[in-house]
Amino acid sequence: MNIGQQQFRTIWPLIQEEGGHALHRVAIIDQTALPHEWRIVTLDSVQQMADAIRRMQVRGAPLIGAAAAYGMALASRHSASDGNLQAAASCLLASRPTAVNLRWAVERMMRKMTAVAEPLRCEHAWREAAQIADEDVRINQAIGRHGLALLQALAADRPRRLNILTHCNAGWLATVDWGTALAPVYAAFDAGMDVHVWVDETRPRNQGASLTAWELQRHGVPYTVVCDNAGGRLMQQGKVDCVIVGADRVTRTGDVCNKIGTYLKALAAADNGVPFYAAVPTPTIDWQIADAKDIPIEERDADEIHMVAGRAENGCTARVRVTPEGSAAANPAFDVTPARLVTSVITEHGCYAPGRLGDILQIVDATINPITSNH
Amino acid sequence: MNIGQQQFRTIWPLIQEEGGHALHRVAIIDQTALPHEWRIVTLDSVQQMADAIRRMQVRGAPLIGAAAAYGMALASRHSASDGNLQAAASCLLASRPTAVNLRWAVERMMRKMTAVAEPLRCEHAWREAAQIADEDVRINQAIGRHGLALLQALAADRPRRLNILTHCNAGWLATVDWGTALAPVYAAFDAGMDVHVWVDETRPRNQGASLTAWELQRHGVPYTVVCDNAGGRLMQQGKVDCVIVGADRVTRTGDVCNKIGTYLKALAAADNGVPFYAAVPTPTIDWQIADAKDIPIEERDADEIHMVAGRAENGCTARVRVTPEGSAAANPAFDVTPARLVTSVITEHGCYAPGRLGDILQIVDATINPITSNH
Repeated sequence: MNIGQQQFRTIWPLIQEEGGHALHRVAIIDQTALPHEWRIVTLDSVQQMADAIRRMQVRGAPLIGAAAAYGMALASRHSASDGNLQAAASCLLASRPTAVNLRWAVERMMRKMTAVAEPLRCEHAWREAAQIADEDVRINQAIGRHGLALLQALAADRPRRLNILTHCNAGWLATVDWGTALAPVYAAFDAGMDVHVWVDETRPRNQGASLTAWELQRHGVPYTVVCDNAGGRLMQQGKVDCVIVGADRVTRTGDVCNKIGTYLKALAAADNGVPFYAAVPTPTIDWQIADAKDIPIEERDADEIHMVAGRAENGCTARVRVTPEGSAAANPAFDVTPARLVTSVITEHGCYAPGRLGDILQIVDATINPITSNH
Repeated sequence: MNIGQQQFRTIWPLIQEEGGHALHRVAIIDQTALPHEWRIVTLDSVQQMADAIRRMQVRGAPLIGAAAAYGMALASRHSASDGNLQAAASCLLASRPTAVNLRWAVERMMRKMTAVAEPLRCEHAWREAAQIADEDVRINQAIGRHGLALLQALAADRPRRLNILTHCNAGWLATVDWGTALAPVYAAFDAGMDVHVWVDETRPRNQGASLTAWELQRHGVPYTVVCDNAGGRLMQQGKVDCVIVGADRVTRTGDVCNKIGTYLKALAAADNGVPFYAAVPTPTIDWQIADAKDIPIEERDADEIHMVAGRAENGCTARVRVTPEGSAAANPAFDVTPARLVTSVITEHGCYAPGRLGDILQIVDATINPITSNH
């Protein structure tokens, strides 16, 4: 995407000359500094990458997948032995439990790397990581095209601005480029449609207020930030034409695990006859899980509830405490929206009723979804 | 309630000697300073009272009613002419549009004051305001008793801690004393029941994280703060035994207008078979309205979305900005939970199915509910 006059992805390899050798490193946009500060961070090791994932400097299921792939490549710089790769994989897999793309990318990298002799593994790793990143971009463009058709159909019935509500950030910052939930929005805006986005602020980490608002603003898409409590009322008033969210993991039966609070918006959408779409690249579908109860839900630090980060009046980033000292707080990071509340799943292969996701297995490429090739 | 060793209400008259005369003023707990600072503010005029209501130094439908009554008494200190009282009433009614208790209290005060000769009005006003405050305390104690019976029935089926979720603050800080939604909780805790409260933080003003957490902590009731997004997941996991909320206005058909986000919790409760209770003193019931669409919903300042207030690391109160500069934000303060999602309305006269609220009119005292005496 364009930031100022420059074209950016959220993650990219850096190749620098050092002592006659080409040294590979990885650059990321530090998303914990947005929207108030633009900061690029360079990573040198798989530990640094795992740390960036855990601290959410990179976040969003598709981006976490690409980041994990680059993490495996970084690990292979020093030693590409089976033992070292296994340790790197474990380090990455422990960083965040819910997004299935992380496991998917690590497994794909392991398979590619261990298929060749040790001296070739590093080169293969960088190539495969770049391919995963490029594939993500293509997938999201395809999601944008399929989602655009849905939005055009909705707009055909409404001779006015189309209002889309989204939760959390599933925009280009959550992916390598274009985004999942926001890909159809960007496609619609670029096609000249009159669209407006209701942006849930998405407590506790405010990814909506900070990241979704920021990237929509940079692109020029009209948006309004609301607190997470407001969406139901907006739907009661007929001010929401559809909801589009991303996902961190989708079961093969169509249950959608996404940022905490998604389920509440899906309930309100169903209660008000508003279509509810999940934009889901196939690497986010976990074909091994049918029952959403088997998805591990990350429980994050209670401090994310107690403390809110933002820009203080002096322009510096600061945190303020909102709860009384000594309060207990709980912080489940995701919830599960049952398939019955999902109107359609927008994938790179087209739109599917949640109960028909299995049809994708007929057409999916084994390199895109390794799980199927294991069966 | 006890704060330290002292017994407090949220509002009380202050009588001071000044030049041989008894000067009446009103003291309030400044709720915008909590939970980090304990501050008592003294008010001298109806304008100051209206300002305190608008700025939410006093808030919560029942407390707004009592505050408005004392505001009318303050207005009568200088002149109790019809014109002056009418101006005072208009000033108070404009301060916050949604809570019906405000209108109820102002109308009751006007009726009492204009029924007597001008020289007697001031004295009558202070007496009537004190009576409204005392009635609120008695009403809330009765709500506590009726709600306790509901909680005891729920606990009988569960040989473990009873988990109650609440949204916003409908505790003693929202009333003169005891609270509405929290009155049954305090009654249960004081009766030795093992209760625990899930406290929604309640963005954008965080009345849950700041006020509900604070007053439960002072009373010793176990609680856990969660972001507003979490309640649906907690219910999916069976971690919520009932929801109890207050209300700012209830239609005679049982629709519950309450803090924005209440509707989403009611949807989740219905979806998971969790009882949803509204604790409602009869002055909060608007017998004139059958269709919730006729309730004016306050739209508050967008800055409440952009900025979050709390305690900075240096111990001072500070605000941080969470959205990018130039973002639009919308801030509807209330939503409406349809009667079909409400299990029971807990009033001072007992518990009613929302469709049977009209039965209260058979027993209600005309001095408690003036609307009925107008018909």
